[in-house]
Amino acid sequence: MRNVTKENITETFTGYFGDDTDPRVKEVLSSLAHHIHEFVRETKLTHDEWRKGLEFLEWAGKITSPERNEFVLLSDVLGMSSLVDMMHSTPEATSSSVLGPFHVSNPPPLEIGGDMKRDFEGEVVVVEGRVKDMSGNPIAGAELDIWQTAPNGMYSSQDPEQDIHSFHALMTTDANGRYAFTTVRPVSYTVPDDGPVGEILRAAGRHPWRPSHLHFVVKAAGHRDLVTEVFAADDPYLDEDTVFGVREDLVMTYVPQPAGSFPDGYALSGQVADSFARVDFDFVLPAA
Amino acid sequence: MRNVTKENITETFTGYFGDDTDPRVKEVLSSLAHHIHEFVRETKLTHDEWRKGLEFLEWAGKITSPERNEFVLLSDVLGMSSLVDMMHSTPEATSSSVLGPFHVSNPPPLEIGGDMKRDFEGEVVVVEGRVKDMSGNPIAGAELDIWQTAPNGMYSSQDPEQDIHSFHALMTTDANGRYAFTTVRPVSYTVPDDGPVGEILRAAGRHPWRPSHLHFVVKAAGHRDLVTEVFAADDPYLDEDTVFGVREDLVMTYVPQPAGSFPDGYALSGQVADSFARVDFDFVLPAA
Repeated sequence: MRNVTKENITETFTGYFGDDTDPRVKEVLSSLAHHIHEFVRETKLTHDEWRKGLEFLEWAGKITSPERNEFVLLSDVLGMSSLVDMMHSTPEATSSSVLGPFHVSNPPPLEIGGDMKRDFEGEVVVVEGRVKDMSGNPIAGAELDIWQTAPNGMYSSQDPEQDIHSFHALMTTDANGRYAFTTVRPVSYTVPDDGPVGEILRAAGRHPWRPSHLHFVVKAAGHRDLVTEVFAADDPYLDEDTVFGVREDLVMTYVPQPAGSFPDGYALSGQVADSFARVDFDFVLPAA
Repeated sequence: MRNVTKENITETFTGYFGDDTDPRVKEVLSSLAHHIHEFVRETKLTHDEWRKGLEFLEWAGKITSPERNEFVLLSDVLGMSSLVDMMHSTPEATSSSVLGPFHVSNPPPLEIGGDMKRDFEGEVVVVEGRVKDMSGNPIAGAELDIWQTAPNGMYSSQDPEQDIHSFHALMTTDANGRYAFTTVRPVSYTVPDDGPVGEILRAAGRHPWRPSHLHFVVKAAGHRDLVTEVFAADDPYLDEDTVFGVREDLVMTYVPQPAGSFPDGYALSGQVADSFARVDFDFVLPAA
């Protein structure tokens, strides 16, 4: 007769696997059970705390919709999403970082030098750079899927006032691997904190802010996709991104350009203000 | 600037706590983050697996209702619920075990020797015993909240054919700490396996069966509540309860009583068949 005890429960769990269970399923579930059990043992989790945790998950389930995924957000603020990214980053390539929930399908194509800001006002920025392989060679025809917040701190899918394609663009690099576009500086913003994740943040004495960033998914034949974000060097939340997205190599500097100067290389189709900021950021794609 | 890495992310997480965060919140969340991070590192969890896990939680959220809590079930089949029970069991008292989702409020009172089976047919059982304190003294006036499956394998709250109070009873011990009732033998049954938890069980090569058991919540002044289950010694699933509820001291033996014998001690109000089974089980309540 199996006498389940607090000492043998993990072993009992792994003893329940079928003989022909997929080895990876065994590996993942065994590790999951081991760590859940250790968590309960280490904290001597009480019934009340266990119940609270389950109510939390129920609430997260109820608040989750196609527009808002509280489980992804939970994974984000616990650092889990970032850690999964980092486990699969290639050290010789640009770091990957959190995809987030605001990507849209079929972003509108934008020619190199094009204008992503349209009619929005804000601090005008010219973002340019190159996509390269791990040996430093430029990659022609690489595809950059780019998105960011509007100046009101909202992504298009959060904001009924915005067109779904606002601040979204798809750009293809030229023969020299170059890309360039004008936009306005994305703003720092808070993750949704009116649900269970917000309660955790408050209980932990944490704020819900993310530092200003631009999202990129960069793809090229013969390379692994790079899902990443690029942060502003002077953002006050750079040191304490609530979703743990910041990596040393993902910080870009906004260099002020005085009135009268003009970006070279590409004719910019967007209106560049009398003075503007310039950002130079190169992506290195991981080999396939 | 904070450069979050896969090595320092746990430390970064604990560094985010506010100065006046409740120490227990810090302890529980730190342990949770540590173990989630270790799980990701250990398994090198892929983005696809991470996404699958999140879809699983979303699905669990959708299927959860007041009648069915898939998160509790998940905790049960991972052994988490049982481990929380065991962490707070008192070794000198009867072991606690999974409460489960089928308890009802306001169970109908039943006099000692009363009949819980009503009109249901099955293997007739007389269950009797005493409630004692940790020194072995009988506890008078202890309250036993008792429930079990009907012979069709369903609890009243799962079965539109049953009255909500069917196979639920509330009994108070006499001056000698005794309780006794007639019922029919509860059957082994499966946990709901048509949702995400069922998918996990199938992927793990596990069955969804629980061995036959009677549920008890036993309460008495000056003692901690005991939430427990008592299992049949000859059940084929005793060694592999899918929710890890079986403890050595929670196994009771159904002793066949030949036709013509009669239980002594209490006049039994329920009809006792020509032959029946008898179970003797004493509860030892943990001191307050």
